[in-house]
Amino acid sequence: MSTKTTLGILGLGTVGTGVVKLLRDNPQFEIRAIAVRDKNKQREVDLADFHVTDNAFELADDPNIEVIVEVAGGIGQVHEVVKRAIKNGKHIITANKEMIAKHGPEIFEAANKHNVTVFFEAAVGGGIPLISTMQRGLQANRISKVAGIVNGTTNYILTMMEQEKKPFAEALREAQAKGYAEADPTDDIEGNDVVYKIAILASLAFQSPVEVGKIYKQGITQISDLDIQLANEFGYRIKMIGLAQPVGDTGKIDVRAHPMLVPLHHPLAGIEGVNNAIFINGSAVGEVMLSGPGAGQFPTASAVVGDIFNLASALKLPDFARYFQPAMNSTTCDVCPIEETTNAYYIRLETLDVPGVIGHLGLACGEHGVSLLGLVQKGVTDEGVATIVLLTHQVKESQLQAALGDIRRQLTTKEIPVVLRVLR
Amino acid sequence: MSTKTTLGILGLGTVGTGVVKLLRDNPQFEIRAIAVRDKNKQREVDLADFHVTDNAFELADDPNIEVIVEVAGGIGQVHEVVKRAIKNGKHIITANKEMIAKHGPEIFEAANKHNVTVFFEAAVGGGIPLISTMQRGLQANRISKVAGIVNGTTNYILTMMEQEKKPFAEALREAQAKGYAEADPTDDIEGNDVVYKIAILASLAFQSPVEVGKIYKQGITQISDLDIQLANEFGYRIKMIGLAQPVGDTGKIDVRAHPMLVPLHHPLAGIEGVNNAIFINGSAVGEVMLSGPGAGQFPTASAVVGDIFNLASALKLPDFARYFQPAMNSTTCDVCPIEETTNAYYIRLETLDVPGVIGHLGLACGEHGVSLLGLVQKGVTDEGVATIVLLTHQVKESQLQAALGDIRRQLTTKEIPVVLRVLR
Repeated sequence: MSTKTTLGILGLGTVGTGVVKLLRDNPQFEIRAIAVRDKNKQREVDLADFHVTDNAFELADDPNIEVIVEVAGGIGQVHEVVKRAIKNGKHIITANKEMIAKHGPEIFEAANKHNVTVFFEAAVGGGIPLISTMQRGLQANRISKVAGIVNGTTNYILTMMEQEKKPFAEALREAQAKGYAEADPTDDIEGNDVVYKIAILASLAFQSPVEVGKIYKQGITQISDLDIQLANEFGYRIKMIGLAQPVGDTGKIDVRAHPMLVPLHHPLAGIEGVNNAIFINGSAVGEVMLSGPGAGQFPTASAVVGDIFNLASALKLPDFARYFQPAMNSTTCDVCPIEETTNAYYIRLETLDVPGVIGHLGLACGEHGVSLLGLVQKGVTDEGVATIVLLTHQVKESQLQAALGDIRRQLTTKEIPVVLRVLR
Repeated sequence: MSTKTTLGILGLGTVGTGVVKLLRDNPQFEIRAIAVRDKNKQREVDLADFHVTDNAFELADDPNIEVIVEVAGGIGQVHEVVKRAIKNGKHIITANKEMIAKHGPEIFEAANKHNVTVFFEAAVGGGIPLISTMQRGLQANRISKVAGIVNGTTNYILTMMEQEKKPFAEALREAQAKGYAEADPTDDIEGNDVVYKIAILASLAFQSPVEVGKIYKQGITQISDLDIQLANEFGYRIKMIGLAQPVGDTGKIDVRAHPMLVPLHHPLAGIEGVNNAIFINGSAVGEVMLSGPGAGQFPTASAVVGDIFNLASALKLPDFARYFQPAMNSTTCDVCPIEETTNAYYIRLETLDVPGVIGHLGLACGEHGVSLLGLVQKGVTDEGVATIVLLTHQVKESQLQAALGDIRRQLTTKEIPVVLRVLR
């Protein structure tokens, strides 16, 4: 038996390919087998080094595989393979929101019985570590609301409809061309995908199963560019939202998946393209928001591989020592002196209000390679002191300091009260 | 020996009081002792049930305490107590950024030697589960940048200076009056607090210790309301930023703590008051952002108590089953039907362009208790069809549906193509 953690990868689509790329050279893991639908299909990764099968049950039955990484999606056969793998004592890592949302209760019951773990960070929020945040980071909280943008496809379509004034059908075609929507986009545009995801988040937040069939949904297919424009005129942007919250103390929860008008100043209004963003309200923490790429090969593979790492180390306490102990590192971090960094700058000067001042400033800057992006002179005091603000292009701090040194020595300069750096 | 996890709380300031409030009634934990500086001080929580001491070393030496929760802050004696507790085999949970940033290497070496764990989620980002996200959720990633707003006090001061046009000294006094700044605000306004926090984040991101003394810092004391106004005119907002990134492949890292001009459309520009927000760039995931309350009693206590829960369960695999298994719950979540939910609505109608249409709409709404917030009529087609948009106040879905039913039955109504809900 290998000392590496042995994996069987089920599915080699976009996400599966990303997982193989991220793990290929990792000494801690060994990919024992990959199950695909079509063995003859041309692939993005070289499969020569791997055992490839078109019989997914082979993975579930292979005694040399410890962990099944299910990135095939859908239910049907995939669900059967997962059940058999659990029965055979294998841990499961899955990106399959539909399977977890619909069959979670049964899957976790089997996992408990056979003493294995099922991780599913990639099922919601793509690369955003949302599940682990709810499950670990916010343990001290009673959650009172989870809401946000959890479907990248519809957010991309709505963004295109607004920013490029495209009708729905054209925005959908563009999303398909870019690989953000599937050939059959029903699950995304009719809201099923959001239903699965909000069902999972509601289960975690309110600690009991949610029946997917009871969740209200509304897709985005009715929305025209006219609605988007009208919503804008009222001060809103239209976003596809998943939402879950208890209804007072009735014991009921309000879980739904539908487009909503979001006020333009609301942080969710600024989430564009395939990005996702989720608000979580906790009894102790208040409101936290997580945002990031909600789809795509590497973001989603990042979540899957994160689960693989966490599973492999689940029996060990987290080991922060390796980050902090010089003995475990070749050296401490070598901090770069500020003089060697490159920044754009905002400089506020006080100068005498005499002719030639701005020319002198420009010369001092030019001499040290500091290029100006903007210059504003603000009034003059009764004492004849002018306030000048310079905005520079990117330049090395040492060059800026040299220019500032020259400026400070100019007889017309009274003071340089503030130098600030500009965030790129 | 108790079957509960036994805790010793070191410090009973704002955060310590929050921790006691959150844990007081939790059956899983027992607070064995609380160490305070002044036993006679009036407290927010009733201490009658607790053993209170003014000798902090008593906690470190008590064989009945398994975990020391250090929420006193500062170094000096606190650091000595922590060292002795580690030597005595106790786990440490700390909110102390200064201690971790300055003495991390030594503390983690001792912890390793004595086989105990040191958790410090509350040291950075208040209630935002930032440490666990970097340490667990993003394990598959090489981090290329960490940057953001990590100090609530300076963000509050800068927000006040901008929004209420207050000078620095007045904004600082207000922050002190509200408990957001300490009586001696030096660590916050001179940038030390950001230095400690960014040192910790850089250590985690780049997996080696960072010498705090080498980190460049600039406080916010030089910034006048004039700078804030000028920055605005250029399209920027001034924010106190911590930043860490490798410098190309030089092996050096660029770590700093200083105010920066942030473009107004940048998400960090929208982070107001004592909130924090941190961007993390990962090789696989791309850019994720976490935001939320960066300070305050319960947000910070949420992070401390989260660590306590995680530590207590660290030897067990996460158990998702309890959320998904009906057998482990009294029942599945009872999903509230959409008819029982309350929302504001956007309704787009097509009607005949004849007199009285709007009156009929208004009557139908009024009859079912649907109150209108806005109504817009948009042009008329050649066929005499008018587009009307209604925006309603909050109302029960069933009432809205009843009103829509009436409207649909009106002879002047052609169609109701879209009904959307408005996010509060």
